[in-house]
Amino acid sequence: MTAYRVAQLLHEGKAKRVYGTDQDDLVAVEFKDDATAFNAQKKAQLAGKGALNCRISALIFEHLERCGVPTHYCGVDGSNWMLVRPVQVVPVEVVIRNVAAGSLCRQLPLAAGTALEPPLLDLYYKDDALGDPLLTEARLAMLGLLSADQRQQLERLARQINQHLLALFARCDLQLVDFKIELGFTRDGELVLADEISPDTCRLWDRAVQDSQDRILDKDRFRQDLGGVIDAYGEVLKRVQQHCPEPRVYG
Amino acid sequence: MTAYRVAQLLHEGKAKRVYGTDQDDLVAVEFKDDATAFNAQKKAQLAGKGALNCRISALIFEHLERCGVPTHYCGVDGSNWMLVRPVQVVPVEVVIRNVAAGSLCRQLPLAAGTALEPPLLDLYYKDDALGDPLLTEARLAMLGLLSADQRQQLERLARQINQHLLALFARCDLQLVDFKIELGFTRDGELVLADEISPDTCRLWDRAVQDSQDRILDKDRFRQDLGGVIDAYGEVLKRVQQHCPEPRVYG
Repeated sequence: MTAYRVAQLLHEGKAKRVYGTDQDDLVAVEFKDDATAFNAQKKAQLAGKGALNCRISALIFEHLERCGVPTHYCGVDGSNWMLVRPVQVVPVEVVIRNVAAGSLCRQLPLAAGTALEPPLLDLYYKDDALGDPLLTEARLAMLGLLSADQRQQLERLARQINQHLLALFARCDLQLVDFKIELGFTRDGELVLADEISPDTCRLWDRAVQDSQDRILDKDRFRQDLGGVIDAYGEVLKRVQQHCPEPRVYG
Repeated sequence: MTAYRVAQLLHEGKAKRVYGTDQDDLVAVEFKDDATAFNAQKKAQLAGKGALNCRISALIFEHLERCGVPTHYCGVDGSNWMLVRPVQVVPVEVVIRNVAAGSLCRQLPLAAGTALEPPLLDLYYKDDALGDPLLTEARLAMLGLLSADQRQQLERLARQINQHLLALFARCDLQLVDFKIELGFTRDGELVLADEISPDTCRLWDRAVQDSQDRILDKDRFRQDLGGVIDAYGEVLKRVQQHCPEPRVYG
């Protein structure tokens, strides 16, 4: 029995629903089986995806907390519910790229697979209607979305997360190509990692596989119609589980 | 009689042809009547456009030189030929926006006509095949296109040019909404303004006109099929001529 009750739906996103609870400083996130890509132009239902992403995210949030990274995570409940602290989400998506892939290779003269050293950090304005446009520092400042201090804090935290994720996934024999994170401010004004970290938000390649399609264990299997999406996510969970303790159950 | 002879075609762009000459440190630029927009997906021939842009550019280059801005400009010859110093063009287009218009309003939550203070400076990677993508500082550094010093020098020069152009066009009762420039390094390593400055590369609004279409005196008349392109460019020339001496003839 858990010590909270789910209350009203606060927000429904493409892959998750966020509910209030009867506790003041707790919200409940339900991971859905909906898969979307290309700004929701491509959609499907993939049975089990919600539970896989919920579990993978929980393991990774707990790992990052052990590394000293503050997150919104409080615990899991059942197969596809996560309890988190409410945060004011920064309307900026942070993408860190260790290897060139995806849209970057259509925008710049970089072959897919090119190692990026230092890792490239891109900020995007979180707005589906505008197609999540890339932000320069000047555009970010013009929109007044973050102060210069907050931007630096956000970038520093994102780069720390990258280092911890690179190390964790390497132990899982997975190459972390790139990933997207969202961050938010808690009521106390602390900047914490929010949203999820899963094969929906990370590009992960199986290091033991050479073939450029077979090695893909992330949402690119869905984007590129490669099939085996759920098997791939399951493989990621299996490997991460080998290096992380079971996630704590909330309540 | 001029003191040079036009030699081989070095490069043909969308609006200009660049020729070598029999002089070591001189190239000849022929302004064409070709109009293109949307990365050359829309094309037309507009009789007289080449001559108008050549003349307007010459007047503005000479004005900027009097203001202390280094340019590649040497003089004009005939109606649509300009003589310039050869430069290694930086593969980065610099756009300065004083007022929100065009693509910016499709990318960010900004209404057309919003004043931008300070003016927004955007850098784009000059590559038609990639659609001239927006560059962040990190992407620019990653591509190794410019050193940090060179970038600062380029941005400083672009902002100086904006101040001089704002003042000149204000005297012409024209609002400089935004403009694109290209810069290049001379053989001596000096960074100079290159390419052209004309209604093809500037958004210019007639300050005396309220109507949001009628006031347009630039390439947006072509982009938006408003008609009267040549009349508008002619009006710009007429006004700039009132505030600038006739351009020098080369040779």
